Amino acid sequence: MKSFMDEWAEIRNYVNEELERIREDIKWPTDLVESAFHLIKGGGKRIRPFLLMVTSKMFGVPYNVSLPAAVSIELLHNFTLIHDDITDRDRVRRGLPTTHVIYGEPIALVAGDFLFSHLYYYLINTYTSLGKPPSLIIKIVSSLSEATDNICKGQVMDLLPHKYISSEENYMKMVYLKTASLIETAVYIGGLLGGVSPETLSKLRKYGKNIGVAFQIADDILGVFGESSRTGKPVGNDIRMGKKTLLVLYALSKMNEKQKQLFDRVFGNRSANDKDIEIVINLLREIGAKGYADKHMKNMVYEAKKALVGLPENIYRKYLENISDYIITREL
Amino acid sequence: MKSFMDEWAEIRNYVNEELERIREDIKWPTDLVESAFHLIKGGGKRIRPFLLMVTSKMFGVPYNVSLPAAVSIELLHNFTLIHDDITDRDRVRRGLPTTHVIYGEPIALVAGDFLFSHLYYYLINTYTSLGKPPSLIIKIVSSLSEATDNICKGQVMDLLPHKYISSEENYMKMVYLKTASLIETAVYIGGLLGGVSPETLSKLRKYGKNIGVAFQIADDILGVFGESSRTGKPVGNDIRMGKKTLLVLYALSKMNEKQKQLFDRVFGNRSANDKDIEIVINLLREIGAKGYADKHMKNMVYEAKKALVGLPENIYRKYLENISDYIITREL
Repeated sequence: MKSFMDEWAEIRNYVNEELERIREDIKWPTDLVESAFHLIKGGGKRIRPFLLMVTSKMFGVPYNVSLPAAVSIELLHNFTLIHDDITDRDRVRRGLPTTHVIYGEPIALVAGDFLFSHLYYYLINTYTSLGKPPSLIIKIVSSLSEATDNICKGQVMDLLPHKYISSEENYMKMVYLKTASLIETAVYIGGLLGGVSPETLSKLRKYGKNIGVAFQIADDILGVFGESSRTGKPVGNDIRMGKKTLLVLYALSKMNEKQKQLFDRVFGNRSANDKDIEIVINLLREIGAKGYADKHMKNMVYEAKKALVGLPENIYRKYLENISDYIITREL
Repeated sequence: MKSFMDEWAEIRNYVNEELERIREDIKWPTDLVESAFHLIKGGGKRIRPFLLMVTSKMFGVPYNVSLPAAVSIELLHNFTLIHDDITDRDRVRRGLPTTHVIYGEPIALVAGDFLFSHLYYYLINTYTSLGKPPSLIIKIVSSLSEATDNICKGQVMDLLPHKYISSEENYMKMVYLKTASLIETAVYIGGLLGGVSPETLSKLRKYGKNIGVAFQIADDILGVFGESSRTGKPVGNDIRMGKKTLLVLYALSKMNEKQKQLFDRVFGNRSANDKDIEIVINLLREIGAKGYADKHMKNMVYEAKKALVGLPENIYRKYLENISDYIITREL
């Protein structure tokens, strides 16, 4: 029986091979192909394809059947990354210059559009030639579109935090829309391919939603308390950038006047020195923000696992439990 | 029997009402809804919905059945306009500031993504609740994706003309991909909804492709020879911008050395004076570029009409002929 990590590596190989095949099929114009696949070729964990394919396999669907949907969701994810990097003016991702840095913003924008457009074309035509029923195909397409609607909504909230992120509740909504919705959809599509009941689909959704949000909270914790060798970003990056995360929203609600003054001086100040950053990190820890977020995250992973109860007790279900633990231990 | 223009106005009303209904359904986040629908609310001829709905009606499909597909194609068109305006840094469209000018580039980028995403969701769910067969719905979705793939390819050619537009042949390919493909798709979907034979579908494609390219050539001619009161742009705008159109590619292939020197001094020179612009316009006319493009355009309209032979001889087919004439007389 293969270990969780070995299975993941195997799936990653399948996905990467299929992505490469798609790239080769498009051929032209070369600037479009290269820009659209720049980030994809740069690597990535392929966590969404893994979740989709393992979920499907839990219900007996072979990997070659779930692969096209898994690859589509990875194309979708990469489309959102290319556009996110443009809007956030991020210059590095996966250790490489971002798409717009290499190809310029106009080409990068079109490259993202193309990935998003092409995945529908690829998905429909691949599943049609595999003889999958149209009724199943449109359910998959519709769920991908709904997730993308959600991502756009979450992205607008994230771009205008002063307007949309004033409370923990708003924040959790944004995280659901921007991050968790696509993870939820990956697992949901896995269930659709398995032909499972509506009850099972709703369990899967619950699992996906919870690990999706937990995944983002883990990221938030790392962004403040993580070692820079692990995050790939300077210590205190999220504090200098003024990122309103669960940690910050919780802490703000608990601070006294003096703490708030100190915090406001450093938070969102891009030239804050390391000493000030350290003081703020300690402040967040003292107030209990780290403990609060940790507890939240662990609770969501607990809920995620609970949602799996009643599903087939095989190694694939075990993998779904493994990956939720993996999120907490934060090797991702 | 209604006139062509009255029928068009009626369809435009249906389309605008449905677009408004969609906008109201989304509700939130307000910044996303407003930015995504800013351009749509600014007007537009709704030429693609008109083509789709009239084609369908020619085969007996009532407007309420073709409306969702027609509205989807208009959403798609507006998504491409929002993104085009960002990549081309255009500041005015339909007499209004462009989306990114009002909402900023990040929000405008997401607004475009959202329209593109939402149209699939809207289309699938509307046709599913109308009881349309999934096999038809996926054909429509797939054709929209294929058209969008084409638009992205054409857009990359257009963004990198030095690399991709060196000959009339390349240029015509770019125009097909960027402009005509979606018009072809509108007419094609009209046929799909009418349940017509593959032969009829291929006639419709031919019609759509030809009027789509003719439409762009007419635009090119106007961009050089049109009155600024009609184009909404200063005289000689396309010459100052160095736009490589059919006119320019033809003229370049016919110029002598002396003409070429004169041309190169003015073409693409944003500060060229009105006297120079006039000289270049006259040069293009003398070389016969206008006559050449005119002939090309008229020939395509002729081919478009010829493709309609054998289709039902009713008022709706007549409208399809009318709109192709309308393109030549350039009131669009």
